[in-house]
Amino acid sequence: MSKKNLRIGVIGAGRIGIVHSGSVNDTAGAELVVVVDAIEESAAKLANQYGAKYTTDVNDIFTKGDVDAIIVGSPTPTHVDLISRSIDAGIHVLCEKPVDLDINRANTIKDKVANSKTNVSIAFNRRYDPNFAAVYARVKAGELGNLEQLVLTSRDPAPPPQSYIAVSGGIFRDQVIHDFDIARYFVGDIAEVSTFATNAFSSEIKAEGDFDTAITNLRSTDGKLVSIINSRHSSYGYDQRLEAFGDKGMLQVTNVAPTSVRSFKSDHSEQLDPYLNFFLERYAASYRKELALFIESIETGKQLNPTYEDGCKALILADAATESAKTGKVVKL
Amino acid sequence: MSKKNLRIGVIGAGRIGIVHSGSVNDTAGAELVVVVDAIEESAAKLANQYGAKYTTDVNDIFTKGDVDAIIVGSPTPTHVDLISRSIDAGIHVLCEKPVDLDINRANTIKDKVANSKTNVSIAFNRRYDPNFAAVYARVKAGELGNLEQLVLTSRDPAPPPQSYIAVSGGIFRDQVIHDFDIARYFVGDIAEVSTFATNAFSSEIKAEGDFDTAITNLRSTDGKLVSIINSRHSSYGYDQRLEAFGDKGMLQVTNVAPTSVRSFKSDHSEQLDPYLNFFLERYAASYRKELALFIESIETGKQLNPTYEDGCKALILADAATESAKTGKVVKL
Amino acid sequence: MSKKNLRIGVIGAGRIGIVHSGSVNDTAGAELVVVVDAIEESAAKLANQYGAKYTTDVNDIFTKGDVDAIIVGSPTPTHVDLISRSIDAGIHVLCEKPVDLDINRANTIKDKVANSKTNVSIAFNRRYDPNFAAVYARVKAGELGNLEQLVLTSRDPAPPPQSYIAVSGGIFRDQVIHDFDIARYFVGDIAEVSTFATNAFSSEIKAEGDFDTAITNLRSTDGKLVSIINSRHSSYGYDQRLEAFGDKGMLQVTNVAPTSVRSFKSDHSEQLDPYLNFFLERYAASYRKELALFIESIETGKQLNPTYEDGCKALILADAATESAKTGKVVKL
Amino acid sequence: MSKKNLRIGVIGAGRIGIVHSGSVNDTAGAELVVVVDAIEESAAKLANQYGAKYTTDVNDIFTKGDVDAIIVGSPTPTHVDLISRSIDAGIHVLCEKPVDLDINRANTIKDKVANSKTNVSIAFNRRYDPNFAAVYARVKAGELGNLEQLVLTSRDPAPPPQSYIAVSGGIFRDQVIHDFDIARYFVGDIAEVSTFATNAFSSEIKAEGDFDTAITNLRSTDGKLVSIINSRHSSYGYDQRLEAFGDKGMLQVTNVAPTSVRSFKSDHSEQLDPYLNFFLERYAASYRKELALFIESIETGKQLNPTYEDGCKALILADAATESAKTGKVVKL
Repeated sequence: MSKKNLRIGVIGAGRIGIVHSGSVNDTAGAELVVVVDAIEESAAKLANQYGAKYTTDVNDIFTKGDVDAIIVGSPTPTHVDLISRSIDAGIHVLCEKPVDLDINRANTIKDKVANSKTNVSIAFNRRYDPNFAAVYARVKAGELGNLEQLVLTSRDPAPPPQSYIAVSGGIFRDQVIHDFDIARYFVGDIAEVSTFATNAFSSEIKAEGDFDTAITNLRSTDGKLVSIINSRHSSYGYDQRLEAFGDKGMLQVTNVAPTSVRSFKSDHSEQLDPYLNFFLERYAASYRKELALFIESIETGKQLNPTYEDGCKALILADAATESAKTGKVVKL
Repeated sequence: MSKKNLRIGVIGAGRIGIVHSGSVNDTAGAELVVVVDAIEESAAKLANQYGAKYTTDVNDIFTKGDVDAIIVGSPTPTHVDLISRSIDAGIHVLCEKPVDLDINRANTIKDKVANSKTNVSIAFNRRYDPNFAAVYARVKAGELGNLEQLVLTSRDPAPPPQSYIAVSGGIFRDQVIHDFDIARYFVGDIAEVSTFATNAFSSEIKAEGDFDTAITNLRSTDGKLVSIINSRHSSYGYDQRLEAFGDKGMLQVTNVAPTSVRSFKSDHSEQLDPYLNFFLERYAASYRKELALFIESIETGKQLNPTYEDGCKALILADAATESAKTGKVVKL
Repeated sequence: MSKKNLRIGVIGAGRIGIVHSGSVNDTAGAELVVVVDAIEESAAKLANQYGAKYTTDVNDIFTKGDVDAIIVGSPTPTHVDLISRSIDAGIHVLCEKPVDLDINRANTIKDKVANSKTNVSIAFNRRYDPNFAAVYARVKAGELGNLEQLVLTSRDPAPPPQSYIAVSGGIFRDQVIHDFDIARYFVGDIAEVSTFATNAFSSEIKAEGDFDTAITNLRSTDGKLVSIINSRHSSYGYDQRLEAFGDKGMLQVTNVAPTSVRSFKSDHSEQLDPYLNFFLERYAASYRKELALFIESIETGKQLNPTYEDGCKALILADAATESAKTGKVVKL
Repeated sequence: MSKKNLRIGVIGAGRIGIVHSGSVNDTAGAELVVVVDAIEESAAKLANQYGAKYTTDVNDIFTKGDVDAIIVGSPTPTHVDLISRSIDAGIHVLCEKPVDLDINRANTIKDKVANSKTNVSIAFNRRYDPNFAAVYARVKAGELGNLEQLVLTSRDPAPPPQSYIAVSGGIFRDQVIHDFDIARYFVGDIAEVSTFATNAFSSEIKAEGDFDTAITNLRSTDGKLVSIINSRHSSYGYDQRLEAFGDKGMLQVTNVAPTSVRSFKSDHSEQLDPYLNFFLERYAASYRKELALFIESIETGKQLNPTYEDGCKALILADAATESAKTGKVVKL
């Protein structure tokens, strides 16, 4: 292949760094050159899997000149700084959500990002799931006429460990932020947020002052209504659905089971297995598509992934939902 | 209602007689006047439920002059004689399948039936199930283009008692005869029959020289192919499906569950309950429709239900399948 | 049958009166004796269909002594008065929702109803749909463990005429009140209501100061969350779903199609027809069950249907949703 | 990775050769070193895609010493000879179905294959589709109790070109042979075959003396019944289903749609898109699994893929079905 490979560094060798490294390895035109993680063992293990270098010092990324782009999967508090340094170093960056837990801090580099000559993308991968993407395209093509309601269901199979909850920024900034991005993607900017949240099952999450269960209503600035249903657990697997309702019909993204096998027994019929367990399986295709768009953005100079501004706006919605959940009031934006 | 009620006698107070009596009671324009059964207790119980008379002497039907029509649900060996006497008595008759276990005996009244001034109908109710009827209408309207293949699945929930098996005429004359009628209804007369049958699970059925499991292929005189899959048991409920395949598409009758409730747990998703248990539940609507058509036939003089000839032709197919199963040869008709 | 028939009068010969009259006719132990409607033609037509008397004067019900029970399907403003007069006359009453459009007026007879020696039931029939009832029973039996979230979707096929909208009390008192009753049935009393409503498609509904589209979140007094999604139109038929989510799993009431036929063509697979069109078809079984429970309540002296208090509490929720939709604030109860 | 790559040559740069080359490229431990095709342009194009060499001379495979294994996707008449030469050359071989169109010719190398020191595998990939494999494992684990019936539906989206039909050996040796292999995989050796075949739609296929539509019944040597339904076209996409029925229940492999999106409109509900178009999409995972098993077989010395004998036995069934279809008789084996 004549086209030169894009040299990519992955920062953070945790769960999401592993996903992105695999996607890089599977993608023509991309090469995983280095993995960064403060824990040497993690960095080494992931790097070795794909024949890449590793380092525990993130400064290497910006000083050694051997990467064209980075994918940031390190803890949230590092995101703003890494984006900022990438811009300075002329390195493209695809950064995991959320941009930060503090919108004020996120805003400090807003102008810098806006003027960046390199690509800055935020990893709201769900837009690129083939199922969500198909509904999006059909809605935008007018198949439903006027889109009137959007219903999003997002239930994780099981909550993360308490240590992660403690630094996650809470359910809205950590989990529901994906739904806020999808809501904005479909209906545009949001004017009102009303959230009821509760502690239905997890004393660990409650101990962190966070919620495990929530329902949120949004109204877009042009009057469309969005209902979001969330839980931090789901006995039957990762529950990820979307329902777009318009005057000409409805389109649903339904869940995905590991096989197409259905069982019929004396106590049931038409039974599927539990759904795909979690995002690694359910969104495998979307991570690859996200990376492909990142590469295409760099090659063409077009912004094809969600922007830093999208990241900030989803965070603002997460902040509003948090406030609404805590005060019991509707929050206007 | 100004229209005079049709006075109906039900012969046979067994399972199917109970179904028909209920249908008569539910149908405007019909009145259950008498129930006949050799077992007085059965006749009395069913008659009393609907305020009808009862008798143990079937001659009463033909001598007392108080019925306009009869529904015959008594044992198969009585069918030919009862149809014959009904014609003589000017009484309309809806007779259960099969017309007889012996096609030669059935043929003895063929001409008499053909010249009858009263209505003679055979109770192949499955044609009137709303699901089968919908597919039939769509196929006949050309929605599938040329119909190329028909696949019928028919599995009973559990075999009848051995005593019934002993007099049933075998699986093909007792159970599969419904599928043979549906096959003829969709593709017309049949030219070739090939059946593989076996004793997969029931020693009682085997003891009667009958089969519990069978697969049958038919070819119609104009070359359409029909595949029929049968079993005398089904752990997940009554399995009654049809698949019509043509050059423009496919239509399926899928099974019917008792509710639309789906369950999702740690070991499954999208689970329905087992299907409706048996014909009383699954074909309740078709029995009412069959009766309504019988009444309409009498009122209009048009033959709307399957004819005696249909009954004979299905029996001929059952004979052919029995022969094929026993000889291991294709039977040409 | 030895048991004396319950003599029933139906008040109101409109759409719902027709449904109830049919149910009475289908129900053993009940007899439709009189139909009341201000429009003589309507009353006569419905009465004649079942061989009942008719009158345009509702006073006949209370003075002639020929009814044991009434079913009230007349306009909402008549409900409180008719219930009150029934109690005085010693007549049992099954009254359509809502009890009134004004909770204060409804409250004027609260004590009287509480002390009534005759049965007063409110017709929230949806509780008795076999699908909703099955999920309810399974939830109450603990199959889901702790119930954490309830999601109700209720979209009518098409809006009622503007003249009806004008006197309906608005979408929450007319349509969503059924969902409020189901919510209370599953999760008990409600503490907080937050509604976003809009005019997405109907200028006629807007002209009446009413909404055509709404999403409502509820929190029960013990912390359970309920999300309700409503529209006054639905191109694909009557959309009536329920999702009960608990720590041990999820149960869904899915929609009901007219047949089990699925279509496969060059542009689709697994296609069902649009859903059953509206409540007459979708809830036919629930109307019969509701009537059976009303009769059983009268015979046994037990209250088996929703009470007048249930009717008032659903109305209070409708009032709260209306207020929340109009003020943009969360309403605490 | 320390383990040395298996050097693989792909013979035949047509549709199936392209699939296998992609699988080799995606598989760790395997390296595509050379592509052989008589048409230089085809060989070059495929080879260049993966940085491999190419040749138009198949002798290079056996003389140059640079391949450890070959995958044979060239025309059927070359299969026996290529397998034979591979054994002589100490090269492992994975050969496409059918082994030959003439069982006598296939038998000439039977002993040689049986004594081969290198691996000889036949590419009945369908066994490794995750859906088929899941049902197989559950059946073998006894989940259905005694397996009584197997129903296979296999309809291609559209017939191959007439030129291919002419050399294909007919529908049974070309298409249905996959179903014969699956039948043997599930129920073991077959004792009786009865096939009805017809020309339902294609004058081109008829012109070649071949059939476009068939239904086949099999009986295994231990009495299990198999029904196979085939067509050379299917308007709604590639139709690939399996139904395993036993005394304890039923397991179905249902079809696979490109997305999980369901559509609801004024003329339909619950509609999926047409199914995945053909084997490249539907069986992508099975091709990769097949290759992985081939590599594992070579590494471990265990035969994990279907054997040459499996290939011969499926061919014998195809011969029997052809004979049955042409003579109208049941064929005993």
